Amino acid sequence: MTEPQQVDHAQHGYIGHKDDYLRRLRRIEGQARGLQRMVSEEAYCIDILTQVSAMTKALQAVSLGLLEEHMNHCVVNAAQESDDAGKEKVDEAMQAIARLVKS
Amino acid sequence: MTEPQQVDHAQHGYIGHKDDYLRRLRRIEGQARGLQRMVSEEAYCIDILTQVSAMTKALQAVSLGLLEEHMNHCVVNAAQESDDAGKEKVDEAMQAIARLVKS
Amino acid sequence: MTEPQQVDHAQHGYIGHKDDYLRRLRRIEGQARGLQRMVSEEAYCIDILTQVSAMTKALQAVSLGLLEEHMNHCVVNAAQESDDAGKEKVDEAMQAIARLVKS
Amino acid sequence: MTEPQQVDHAQHGYIGHKDDYLRRLRRIEGQARGLQRMVSEEAYCIDILTQVSAMTKALQAVSLGLLEEHMNHCVVNAAQESDDAGKEKVDEAMQAIARLVKS
Repeated sequence: MTEPQQVDHAQHGYIGHKDDYLRRLRRIEGQARGLQRMVSEEAYCIDILTQVSAMTKALQAVSLGLLEEHMNHCVVNAAQESDDAGKEKVDEAMQAIARLVKS
Repeated sequence: MTEPQQVDHAQHGYIGHKDDYLRRLRRIEGQARGLQRMVSEEAYCIDILTQVSAMTKALQAVSLGLLEEHMNHCVVNAAQESDDAGKEKVDEAMQAIARLVKS
Repeated sequence: MTEPQQVDHAQHGYIGHKDDYLRRLRRIEGQARGLQRMVSEEAYCIDILTQVSAMTKALQAVSLGLLEEHMNHCVVNAAQESDDAGKEKVDEAMQAIARLVKS
Repeated sequence: MTEPQQVDHAQHGYIGHKDDYLRRLRRIEGQARGLQRMVSEEAYCIDILTQVSAMTKALQAVSLGLLEEHMNHCVVNAAQESDDAGKEKVDEAMQAIARLVKS
């Protein structure tokens, strides 16, 4: 599932928003640390669950953002290259979408 | 949604497995850092999405574990105290479950 | 997973709202027929997906309703009977919740 | 969100498998009727929830199938037509995917 090293980076759709994704992932990392603090301090279970749901939603938003940029770049470029290349990228994207829908 | 300070901590079901939850949350924090590394190094979008799905699944397992211990302790104890106390805890748990199902 | 025949029906929480659940399930059956009509008439894929999402949400609301009544009746009653009976019903409910969260 | 009437039907990816989708949707309609029977006969709540989860999974599989054919046809064709047409179809597909992920 990993692309060859010599790939043209221009096709990675999210690169233009790298800083935005890094900022969101740092915030998510902070939420994971906040959850550890809550467990250490024996916070109320329901309050912890509320924070876990917020963190899951933040991760889901990151996924949908990355997927959109992937489709707008990698999938569209592949389709313009050839039908087969397009189909291959769609198959790969569909596997990622199925994992998202089921997780 | 926060319980009064003087709550009997014995009813927080997860306390007996605090170390286990802390270990799982530290691993999740590590996954958030791993994702930042992947974005910094401009990893392939689909590979990042695969890691986000794994992290979401790990968070979901933490939620289901916390919820089970909450139900076995707080909800069962409240039900044994009175019908009203049981109903109140069930309502609160259902709101958390609805957030989990929708997130 | 099926209860013994001689079960006290009073504990089935949803019985008091049987007509409401039947009405909602008939509407969901109608949505399934509507989807067949859309496919027969070769409707646009995205419009079909929108209807499938609406139907999934309706089913999810039925699940959460049934679960809430189950917890308020079967789980609370079992907890009041004994710790073991309560724990058994919580285990069973948690399996249903895990299926809901993952589906 | 509805396409113009004069659309080229060839681009509706699922048309080639219309009978398969109709069969699956008829089975889902049957599941909705089975659920009504269970409620009428006052079946055990957890057994009803198990059937609702099975029906939700069947609907989810229909969604993912329709989406895959949509992407392989409508999205790929639009991308081959022009960048703008591709982007428009990706935007529309992403909205459907976001609804799927959240439902």
